[in-house]
Amino acid sequence: MKSVKKESTMTTSIATLQEIGRKLRIHSITATTAAGSGHPTSCMSAADIMSVMFFREMQFEPSDPDNPANDRFVLSKGHAAPLLYAAFAEAGIFTVPQLATLRKIDSILEGHPTPRIPWVDVATGSLGQGLSAALGNALASRLEKIPFNTYVLMGDGECAEGSVWEAATLAGHYKTSNLFAAVDVNGMGQSQHTMDEFHVERFVDKFKAAGWYAIAIDGHDYSAITAAFEEFKAKAGDQPRALIAKTFKGKGVSFVENKDGWHGKPIPKADLDRALAELATPVPGAESYKPNPRPWPKTEEPTKAVEITPSRKPGETAATREAYGDALAKLAVADSRIVALDGDTKNSTFSEKVLKVKPEQFIEMFIAEQNMVGVAMGLAARGKVPFVATFAAFLTRAYDQIRMAGVSGSNIKLCGSHCGVSIGEDGPSQMGLEDIAMFRPIPGSVILYPSDAVSTERLVWEAANRHGICYIRTTRPKTAMLYSNEEKFPIGGSKTLRKSANDRVTVVGAGITVHEALKAADELTKEGIAIRIIDAYSVKPIDREGLLAAARETGGRIIVVEDHYEEGGLGDAVLNAVGNQASVVKLAVHEIPRSGPPEALLEKYGISSTHIAEAVRQLH
Amino acid sequence: MKSVKKESTMTTSIATLQEIGRKLRIHSITATTAAGSGHPTSCMSAADIMSVMFFREMQFEPSDPDNPANDRFVLSKGHAAPLLYAAFAEAGIFTVPQLATLRKIDSILEGHPTPRIPWVDVATGSLGQGLSAALGNALASRLEKIPFNTYVLMGDGECAEGSVWEAATLAGHYKTSNLFAAVDVNGMGQSQHTMDEFHVERFVDKFKAAGWYAIAIDGHDYSAITAAFEEFKAKAGDQPRALIAKTFKGKGVSFVENKDGWHGKPIPKADLDRALAELATPVPGAESYKPNPRPWPKTEEPTKAVEITPSRKPGETAATREAYGDALAKLAVADSRIVALDGDTKNSTFSEKVLKVKPEQFIEMFIAEQNMVGVAMGLAARGKVPFVATFAAFLTRAYDQIRMAGVSGSNIKLCGSHCGVSIGEDGPSQMGLEDIAMFRPIPGSVILYPSDAVSTERLVWEAANRHGICYIRTTRPKTAMLYSNEEKFPIGGSKTLRKSANDRVTVVGAGITVHEALKAADELTKEGIAIRIIDAYSVKPIDREGLLAAARETGGRIIVVEDHYEEGGLGDAVLNAVGNQASVVKLAVHEIPRSGPPEALLEKYGISSTHIAEAVRQLH
Repeated sequence: MKSVKKESTMTTSIATLQEIGRKLRIHSITATTAAGSGHPTSCMSAADIMSVMFFREMQFEPSDPDNPANDRFVLSKGHAAPLLYAAFAEAGIFTVPQLATLRKIDSILEGHPTPRIPWVDVATGSLGQGLSAALGNALASRLEKIPFNTYVLMGDGECAEGSVWEAATLAGHYKTSNLFAAVDVNGMGQSQHTMDEFHVERFVDKFKAAGWYAIAIDGHDYSAITAAFEEFKAKAGDQPRALIAKTFKGKGVSFVENKDGWHGKPIPKADLDRALAELATPVPGAESYKPNPRPWPKTEEPTKAVEITPSRKPGETAATREAYGDALAKLAVADSRIVALDGDTKNSTFSEKVLKVKPEQFIEMFIAEQNMVGVAMGLAARGKVPFVATFAAFLTRAYDQIRMAGVSGSNIKLCGSHCGVSIGEDGPSQMGLEDIAMFRPIPGSVILYPSDAVSTERLVWEAANRHGICYIRTTRPKTAMLYSNEEKFPIGGSKTLRKSANDRVTVVGAGITVHEALKAADELTKEGIAIRIIDAYSVKPIDREGLLAAARETGGRIIVVEDHYEEGGLGDAVLNAVGNQASVVKLAVHEIPRSGPPEALLEKYGISSTHIAEAVRQLH
Repeated sequence: MKSVKKESTMTTSIATLQEIGRKLRIHSITATTAAGSGHPTSCMSAADIMSVMFFREMQFEPSDPDNPANDRFVLSKGHAAPLLYAAFAEAGIFTVPQLATLRKIDSILEGHPTPRIPWVDVATGSLGQGLSAALGNALASRLEKIPFNTYVLMGDGECAEGSVWEAATLAGHYKTSNLFAAVDVNGMGQSQHTMDEFHVERFVDKFKAAGWYAIAIDGHDYSAITAAFEEFKAKAGDQPRALIAKTFKGKGVSFVENKDGWHGKPIPKADLDRALAELATPVPGAESYKPNPRPWPKTEEPTKAVEITPSRKPGETAATREAYGDALAKLAVADSRIVALDGDTKNSTFSEKVLKVKPEQFIEMFIAEQNMVGVAMGLAARGKVPFVATFAAFLTRAYDQIRMAGVSGSNIKLCGSHCGVSIGEDGPSQMGLEDIAMFRPIPGSVILYPSDAVSTERLVWEAANRHGICYIRTTRPKTAMLYSNEEKFPIGGSKTLRKSANDRVTVVGAGITVHEALKAADELTKEGIAIRIIDAYSVKPIDREGLLAAARETGGRIIVVEDHYEEGGLGDAVLNAVGNQASVVKLAVHEIPRSGPPEALLEKYGISSTHIAEAVRQLH
């Protein structure tokens, strides 16, 4: 990958930048005092870096948030939101009076930034995530060959988060020279001094070890800040660039500057005038800010992925994880927005199939799941449709990023392979048994759990077309084909695989347990017992009407069987759907499993065909 | 903190170590071929480092896993489990024939190590977690003043995980010179070469930047490996020590050594003899291994925390998060096993109260939640009772570690403060709204959710005494006292706060919603409507009998109200408990919330007293 660049020829004078810095401080403290909460001192330390980045380095058209060539900005230290909003006001994106709506319930100026503001790509506020999203932006710039840069403002305290170093290392590896990170080293955390206090050299060492071009400077010295950016342009070559800025928290107001006890506290109303008086003198020679856009033609992006069609043979067996790869490869060929990301498991999740047919649409993320999801959020914000894959168990590593993708309304797709005890001998550390429980609470999330290759292919396509967070759960062992190639699998639907007028109970399964249910049905048939079988491939939203209808026709009896822990999975989804309109028996995994053959594990943990048959008999 | 050390005077000859290395390889490939799955080549790269660490450096008594002064070993690259089991066999802990039970369903020799083996402190297999657990061991050594060292074997691929660098940075900060990490740089991941391939200098740079004494060597050269450990002893001073070992995956068997395509694959049965032939020559001059124990007196550890008693005044208001701090401080004074960990939120979670009264029982973990939970697992394995606290939202960052704590059967306590929309203006990124859903699936987990200061204090004590993962959910705003100081809160119980013969519905709440329910009851009383109110302070296990009895007495009608997303929380816990024996209406948060005042948010998202009253009226 190689970055495309278009450097600006305009520049903003230092006096102008200083004057903007003064105003950013005024806005930050005024808005937080009005709100009665917030983090003004965390804004003040970064005001000068922010002024230079936003008003000298960045090229963007303030009237057009959708210009694809706008430089991007990510406020990783999200609690400095008032500083960002102040910059938007100084750039003409917000009005100054609008800043007074900070933290009010009907305002888009929330306590931490969210994409309710069109200029905010991803929600921040859970620390240490911004660099990943920014890296996603930077990689999107390359993929799209649109020469924008991405700037990210980080706190020093959040650099204790490992996710920062996942992102930094990968940025160094992929040489994203279009990525600029500024670390605001004010030395003070929330409850005490940071680990590294004012040791800016430690940050420089860490970024250099990750392959970055890093410079330490005084973050309140405009000449030094602007010189650093010039040095980047002259010397950083193909490396990503880190500005390590030594600053003072609360800089600009003497009675809070570098003082303990001011984290997350607005200046009291009684002291506001005294604070503003210290910031009252305009900088001589300052001019008004002139936007410096990077004109770019708008292109219409497709909004629907080209439909793909399965072409499985009757009698074929295939693992749903492999069908995921087949489908994604077809989608990637048809649609350049599709990008596959994988954390060094691509030969297990089968996202390597995309690498084989469309290498430019595959990004190896190495074993760093948090950054993988964060990068996906950045890619999605720039119009890509990222599909993130790893073992279902390892997506738990990125739950905070998934949560924040929810807050961001991100259009990301995640595939968790090797779900449940059916993976076999690798044992409990590799078994995803809480993944459905993890995805269900995310507002608007979709959870798809195919049982055969045909449904997998259809559901990958459905996920590509559904805006928002879609989770696809795939299985390790091969399974039989249950559906014809023509069958459709709309989100929110279900399939009825066995049905007769004499069904005594409805068995609801998904994935591997659908096959166990079919085996149980065959066994029970010999005993003269007929059962209804429903494949609940859409776990969220679930087919409530279908379930209720089946329950009505089968004596109000439902058995749910799933390769997942008993709490939060398919069983709870069904229970919520039917409420007290049916009696629900849940078969699920109740304890930490062991290593063993897949069939033996399904048996030992109570979700095999024999357990299903026995549960039916007990209800019968 | 300062480490206590007792260096061994014994040494094992290089010939003996080489011979053990040969046997470790033989055992690793034999066992995996017999099992038909596993990762022999990942064992072979590390066999020589393992031989030196285990049989030269480590001091332990093979017959006594409980000797408190045994050096500890953590296999962070858990997929090399057969290598660990082979070392146990060579040390006399296992028999050689036992190795053939690898990956069998009734064997403790699982695909990845778990504490079903008494010598394994924490389960590994989710990569990048071992260094945190090892750091927990190292910190426990200091706290207990027992001079054992901790050794951890890491893979190179897993060093892409940020959690590794969270642990490394904190170890550097706390100067844990009793911590030795070896990185097996074989350059090959699962699906392709690692990011850094054979660039051992990059690992050295990263560890040095984190404050470690790091040496790169040839990981198959016994003289170099032993010399490195001598250099550590001579020169590393108070720094933690990293051995960066360049190795070859599959080392020792020519047809797999440093060859692509052999990750996670046993040597086929047909090729086993050919492989073993290459390892057939015993090393001349090797002697048998002589254990090198560090004798240490055993002390009886208390098994129960001293009971603490709340001393709240009637009419007092207090946030449950503050009561958490009060209780934990009292417990810490009474019991040296209690250790409070916090991620730079101690003035918000109030774990700073422990720092104030027992500074030696408080560990600042900075903003790195994954490592915080990993360290807690290491501390717990050494007899400590760690209480981990941060915002509930940020515990999602450590879900994989929490999952693995479940697999490990760890005795750790976690407190998530600032749960739900009731936190107010900071907005959705800071609101824990999926934390109950996250903890419920973990087998054996306990979830406690107090509504006032008295119940909080009692529940902190209950958590300290209950072995296993206990989660305590605390609230930001102050709430009224609901209980007298004498009231007890057993795990699995509930409290009935309003009860009459005319109750038309049971309202179940927990935390802040109990107070909303009480307000609703007062409002409804004016309309002549009586309701039952249950405080479900024990979300898991939940008081099923109590709920069913209340439902029976209130017309089978239950309303559950919770400051959590609708999926996976208290509502689902209640639904599972009552099944179709009651009709359950769930009031919960259904969308991504915004910033605003707490009361306005409770109202906007449908969980305030007015919504409860309205739901009651609709059922009435």
